[in-house]
Amino acid sequence: MAQNIYDQPAFFEGYSSLPRSVHGLTGAAEWESVRALLPDLKGRRVLDLGCGFGWFARHAAAEGAASVLGLDLSKNMIARARAETASPAVRYEIADLDQLDLPSGAFDFAYSSLAFHYIADFDRLVRRVHAALVAGSSFVFTIEHPLYMAPSRPDWAEIDGRTIWPVDDYLVEGPRTTDWLAKGVVKYHRTLGTTLNALIAAGFVIGHVEEWRPSASQLDEHPEWQVELNRPMFLLIACERP
Amino acid sequence: MAQNIYDQPAFFEGYSSLPRSVHGLTGAAEWESVRALLPDLKGRRVLDLGCGFGWFARHAAAEGAASVLGLDLSKNMIARARAETASPAVRYEIADLDQLDLPSGAFDFAYSSLAFHYIADFDRLVRRVHAALVAGSSFVFTIEHPLYMAPSRPDWAEIDGRTIWPVDDYLVEGPRTTDWLAKGVVKYHRTLGTTLNALIAAGFVIGHVEEWRPSASQLDEHPEWQVELNRPMFLLIACERP
Repeated sequence: MAQNIYDQPAFFEGYSSLPRSVHGLTGAAEWESVRALLPDLKGRRVLDLGCGFGWFARHAAAEGAASVLGLDLSKNMIARARAETASPAVRYEIADLDQLDLPSGAFDFAYSSLAFHYIADFDRLVRRVHAALVAGSSFVFTIEHPLYMAPSRPDWAEIDGRTIWPVDDYLVEGPRTTDWLAKGVVKYHRTLGTTLNALIAAGFVIGHVEEWRPSASQLDEHPEWQVELNRPMFLLIACERP
Repeated sequence: MAQNIYDQPAFFEGYSSLPRSVHGLTGAAEWESVRALLPDLKGRRVLDLGCGFGWFARHAAAEGAASVLGLDLSKNMIARARAETASPAVRYEIADLDQLDLPSGAFDFAYSSLAFHYIADFDRLVRRVHAALVAGSSFVFTIEHPLYMAPSRPDWAEIDGRTIWPVDDYLVEGPRTTDWLAKGVVKYHRTLGTTLNALIAAGFVIGHVEEWRPSASQLDEHPEWQVELNRPMFLLIACERP
């Protein structure tokens, strides 16, 4: 069972004050890059894995999705998502993605934002998602980039005046415990290769792999993000279920 | 035009004394992992891009390939490859992979070992390889892993007693000049995403992505390779031309 860190009061409070929680999709630096990977959502039956406050679910409904099912482990997040969603096309359920059961061939598009790095059994998850999608569907998701997650101390360091990302243990997969918003947040490191091979083994065809970097206009607006060019924070993947 | 570093005497001498040059395929730590990705070569028309001393070309011929064309920029390497190859199925030519022209639909399998990181225009190269392969062919290649190549100073560093790989500029693509066997060796850094997206854009379907790590038995035999688990040195990719 996945750790339910989002329902710990200190974590929930911290997470709720992040730009992406306050401003929604446009508060997330990677959103425009993610959006470019999305299919036309009109008429689609959308599955959102780790839906959080429901920002994407409402976006999909506004884009004309036939239905949206948003799943999240956090009771707090599902409660707020329900309270803030008026669309009858959107439904939310509490669910542990590590123990997911989904109806077969019930969706035309699957989406997930920054949730899968909390999942211990990624192979099982992608097999379930594949079975839940009809042929011709696409699957777009983001995770923390494995380069960002791998190190034993994932933080900038200085060497000879250079700011570097101190990578170690990249090829040692498994849990990583960090302090982010709360102490003892557990994430699961998998190499980029392992993530892609799991998708391929489940039957997906890889369509696009993006190691996110700030755009030129974002760097103009936030010169302090220049340091982000040293290593990717997010990984964006789009694939097809043939 | 690609830099012809292999024909500089100091580089050629240094390269010729590496285990992979002295012992051939089995002298390369990643060979068994590469081999697991290869199709049955029997009857195939094989293209080897950056064939070096011809070790793989001779392997392919021994495995029953119908023909093997080995291409390399280095006159010295091609001369030695020709001198050491008896099989009439194998032919070698001097060629710059950055200015490659290939007959259309003339090959059933394309291979390359540790050559493409010297290529400036990878998009052009993979389009040419795609056109040179018949439908149903596969394409297996290795490159230096972008994590290995990206840093401004690609060497181990120590921080607080940990051995780390100091990553910077990962998202800044382009030439990298290093001193390896000779001074001023020019390689071209592309992110893993860029490499995969170039293959997909050319029409290939990604089959397997492996960020190479030493096997358990290799670590038993070479305990000093433990440090290699901190970051991958090689990237292995297998794809299909549908």
